[in-house]
Amino acid sequence: MTAQRGKRRGESGKTMNYRGIQIEDTYCECTDIYNARLLLTAATEAIALHEAAYLCGWSIITAAPIQGCVEGVAPAGSTPDGRPGVLIQMNAPTPVGLPAFCRALLDRLYILPHLPTCSLYNATVGHAAATSIDAAEHVRRWGDGFDEDARVGSRDCVRIPIMTGDQYIEKQITVSIGTDGVLEVFAQNAASCLQGAQEAAARIVRNVDGVAVFNYPVGGISGAKVGGKTYTQEGVTINEPFCPSVRGATETKLPEGAGAVIEFPLVAAGETAICDGLRAAIDAFADTPGVLAITAPAFGGTWGGRKLYLRTVLKDEE
Amino acid sequence: MTAQRGKRRGESGKTMNYRGIQIEDTYCECTDIYNARLLLTAATEAIALHEAAYLCGWSIITAAPIQGCVEGVAPAGSTPDGRPGVLIQMNAPTPVGLPAFCRALLDRLYILPHLPTCSLYNATVGHAAATSIDAAEHVRRWGDGFDEDARVGSRDCVRIPIMTGDQYIEKQITVSIGTDGVLEVFAQNAASCLQGAQEAAARIVRNVDGVAVFNYPVGGISGAKVGGKTYTQEGVTINEPFCPSVRGATETKLPEGAGAVIEFPLVAAGETAICDGLRAAIDAFADTPGVLAITAPAFGGTWGGRKLYLRTVLKDEE
Amino acid sequence: MTAQRGKRRGESGKTMNYRGIQIEDTYCECTDIYNARLLLTAATEAIALHEAAYLCGWSIITAAPIQGCVEGVAPAGSTPDGRPGVLIQMNAPTPVGLPAFCRALLDRLYILPHLPTCSLYNATVGHAAATSIDAAEHVRRWGDGFDEDARVGSRDCVRIPIMTGDQYIEKQITVSIGTDGVLEVFAQNAASCLQGAQEAAARIVRNVDGVAVFNYPVGGISGAKVGGKTYTQEGVTINEPFCPSVRGATETKLPEGAGAVIEFPLVAAGETAICDGLRAAIDAFADTPGVLAITAPAFGGTWGGRKLYLRTVLKDEE
Amino acid sequence: MTAQRGKRRGESGKTMNYRGIQIEDTYCECTDIYNARLLLTAATEAIALHEAAYLCGWSIITAAPIQGCVEGVAPAGSTPDGRPGVLIQMNAPTPVGLPAFCRALLDRLYILPHLPTCSLYNATVGHAAATSIDAAEHVRRWGDGFDEDARVGSRDCVRIPIMTGDQYIEKQITVSIGTDGVLEVFAQNAASCLQGAQEAAARIVRNVDGVAVFNYPVGGISGAKVGGKTYTQEGVTINEPFCPSVRGATETKLPEGAGAVIEFPLVAAGETAICDGLRAAIDAFADTPGVLAITAPAFGGTWGGRKLYLRTVLKDEE
Repeated sequence: MTAQRGKRRGESGKTMNYRGIQIEDTYCECTDIYNARLLLTAATEAIALHEAAYLCGWSIITAAPIQGCVEGVAPAGSTPDGRPGVLIQMNAPTPVGLPAFCRALLDRLYILPHLPTCSLYNATVGHAAATSIDAAEHVRRWGDGFDEDARVGSRDCVRIPIMTGDQYIEKQITVSIGTDGVLEVFAQNAASCLQGAQEAAARIVRNVDGVAVFNYPVGGISGAKVGGKTYTQEGVTINEPFCPSVRGATETKLPEGAGAVIEFPLVAAGETAICDGLRAAIDAFADTPGVLAITAPAFGGTWGGRKLYLRTVLKDEE
Repeated sequence: MTAQRGKRRGESGKTMNYRGIQIEDTYCECTDIYNARLLLTAATEAIALHEAAYLCGWSIITAAPIQGCVEGVAPAGSTPDGRPGVLIQMNAPTPVGLPAFCRALLDRLYILPHLPTCSLYNATVGHAAATSIDAAEHVRRWGDGFDEDARVGSRDCVRIPIMTGDQYIEKQITVSIGTDGVLEVFAQNAASCLQGAQEAAARIVRNVDGVAVFNYPVGGISGAKVGGKTYTQEGVTINEPFCPSVRGATETKLPEGAGAVIEFPLVAAGETAICDGLRAAIDAFADTPGVLAITAPAFGGTWGGRKLYLRTVLKDEE
Repeated sequence: MTAQRGKRRGESGKTMNYRGIQIEDTYCECTDIYNARLLLTAATEAIALHEAAYLCGWSIITAAPIQGCVEGVAPAGSTPDGRPGVLIQMNAPTPVGLPAFCRALLDRLYILPHLPTCSLYNATVGHAAATSIDAAEHVRRWGDGFDEDARVGSRDCVRIPIMTGDQYIEKQITVSIGTDGVLEVFAQNAASCLQGAQEAAARIVRNVDGVAVFNYPVGGISGAKVGGKTYTQEGVTINEPFCPSVRGATETKLPEGAGAVIEFPLVAAGETAICDGLRAAIDAFADTPGVLAITAPAFGGTWGGRKLYLRTVLKDEE
Repeated sequence: MTAQRGKRRGESGKTMNYRGIQIEDTYCECTDIYNARLLLTAATEAIALHEAAYLCGWSIITAAPIQGCVEGVAPAGSTPDGRPGVLIQMNAPTPVGLPAFCRALLDRLYILPHLPTCSLYNATVGHAAATSIDAAEHVRRWGDGFDEDARVGSRDCVRIPIMTGDQYIEKQITVSIGTDGVLEVFAQNAASCLQGAQEAAARIVRNVDGVAVFNYPVGGISGAKVGGKTYTQEGVTINEPFCPSVRGATETKLPEGAGAVIEFPLVAAGETAICDGLRAAIDAFADTPGVLAITAPAFGGTWGGRKLYLRTVLKDEE
């Protein structure tokens, strides 16, 4: 890894040449999140994926009270009820407060009895719990007296009769403190942005354990900055240095030849998984024709303030 | 269409034999909804479908403040910006109140600047408006001063720079009074339920104008009843006569041989489109191996109270 | 439409500026094809699409004796057996000879009894037949004496019992003389090529009647030239002026800034449908970020020699 | 595992009760196959899957000279060129003869230069080779003099310029002797058959190494018997004891309550992988609502004659 002279950009003023693209030698500003890792099982892998995406829809903290991210498929036979499942991570930055997060989580899960053939289990393993909440306490009342305590393997669950059979919901859901991680990817055009983001999401969902993607199956989003400069009362506004159409009107971070940008955010229970995810994403974008450069966003500490250097993410690859 | 002697069930005590399945000669209890028909365009048809599903995720009124349903694809060339789009219907039963609905709609749309390459337009045509709201008033503040009024064809929009280019959001969004419609489908097993619901959703999204499906692309859900008998404080609980696993423990509506049930709900701007959608759904279920019978839910007037008879839905087919 | 001075390329030395991309003012060299338009129905739209793609796999005339192209979905209710179907066009250039084409068609269709829930009908309408062949004559022997003549609506079919029920195959399949049409698309990179081709294929399959795409759902292929220069005995070799990696080593047609090329071929019963398809494809590519220019291939008359000018294709759009 | 009295069927006259379904205590008649395990890489996982399905289309030995089966996804980073890939197994029963198989394989691969962004590598590991063929010998002539020998990692390849860049094809392709394996699955209806087959295929492609499915992504087919009784000259005809619509007209194997059957065939390099695949398939079918029973086909030694007992397949599960 050699910093290239004359290609100064960002805090460090240096870029790394990695597999044919430029990676700015900077850090991703990360924040702590409340995170509940859940396993949604269903009659088939395809239904589990559809319903996991449905449960995780409309869920970026900018607009929604909770974020739902898709981690991957749990093979049939590996799950409490033996059926195929999808691991999801329901999360929110810790500044929202634990009570608000728990309320939002219970609200989101209250839709479960509508999801045909689905059941839900706790899937946090080996992380210190911030708290644990009784997921079934309220939703069991859907059962209108036909709800019953039940065990699935070693799991304490509630059983609710629904139209496709019985639904099981594990009672204790662990909420742990996890973290996020984000890339900003510059490409010649939006086709490269979309192809790269979808490929990064596909690789992470298929192959990388413990880390989850937003906006599945697209994977990428258009990102924002914390606060506003013109509208100072806003909590979130566009990150204009990454918006190609205002390139001439304000300071830009777009390198020459870049026509579009995609933000690729991830969440996980811890930094190791985030690094695995970011590395897989960087590789996917590096493999994408038309991707030129990658950097990471920083907000001067207003977004959590923990620093994760891209050179640390890539260190195993040097 | 001949009522069959000796197969008495439901209010009318009669069933119709239709294309090899039994259809109860009863009515679907419908309710008025506030409905905003919207067009989400994107770089490609595939991205428009993904992002429409994402925007309509987690959205049944039982758990969420608004319902997002997918109507169909608007071909490139037919849309204000010429790109392919997906028609969605954001809606909620009128008892939630117009102010609450409008607030929920604006909250839901506040995520738009995150959706790569997307723009949003009003798509209500020819229905009396309950009201119209300025969709762009708040979300434009995402633009942090780079937001600008702009016209797309004849549409008054706001333009917000995002990472993949410019996003356009039409200012005036019409809210009209629409309606819903629901089927309950009995089948030998859940595989038939899921295949039938997905096929019904696929046909409606591809071929039937003006009517939109829940839980896309699965289409069907496990339904609920209004209120609770044991938990009398609950607003919604399981509809136990349609739940196979409590068949022996309470009065059941499952016909002999039925092992699973799926509810198939729809929304539309008006009753004509609902009838078109229900008829297409009934045909899809009738074509599905293992589907035995169809009825419609009634809640004694607590769910809106408007009656739509299945024999009316099928009348063009007799 | 104004030819731009100074941008001379190809036969005519002119390019047309169309929706932001350059279109060479040249012609596509078309050839006559033997074409059998067929309708494959199945239990669901999804299964019909899967099996149509399977039936049309590995089928470019360069390597295979017949070409299978996907035209679009026929809604349930519009088909002879009322089920959803997919229209396909089995075809080959007329130089292969009618007997060879018919034999290849019957060979391809001999797999039908393996395809679960599927049936097959003739779908040629209103075109002069080159011939008509008895599709069922051989494949009915699959039935081993349980095969029977049967009518589906007005269609004379054979009925073969298979594991999922009865399969119907219409006896008389029309072979008409159709035509092809091809674009060569230049883009900044392969991501734009793939996104554009998939979007063009999606639009044509969804919206354009009578014209069918290769390599569904990717739509595009890497094209070839007729014959070889170095390997003069070969019937087909790379079209090197369209191959970016030999740009410096031979004459190239790639415009400046182009890093990848995709060929987009179509077939149809006649030139009107080909024009509709090519226009839809050009629009899809013009809408794709990173697409720079489009031309059409010519082989000095060795590929059929009929000329279809791109300016004719676009004339309705001027 | 206890044979149930009074449920006598098939050779052994016994059935095993396994996870709620009946499995006949019989054997699957297996045949030796020539098998070439290949890795097709592409720009993205999605394109690799599409093109692998295209390359494996129309390929059951009944109708086609070679069978193409999909094994699974090879993650980016694990492949010779670092890109995502799909493992496929091109195969045919050994009675076709090695020269005919090799010719059919080379014919099938001759389409490679049409497949955008794709490359192909040998993927046989650790199995005794029946032979090895030079895959590139003929297809390299596509390159018309621009073809060159090249190395990808340790692989000897030929490089052919195509429209999306360079395509690599490994020269030596191993042909080994593999085997097949087949289930016959009885269900209440065709919806269960299709759901079960798709789920079995999904599980095998995602999770089971070394074994490959036909007719991807549907997985199942309608099977045949060797030879004909009425049409004694035919090589293959319906397996009428498994065809529900002739149940009354001939001896049937359908158990009571069964309305449809699906055959689920697999191929692999050896019997261990076949057992893994059959076990995963049996589990998928057992999990599918409406599946009643499973057996295996036997043809009195005319289909290879090697016996694989289902009780052996399940032994790890007892």
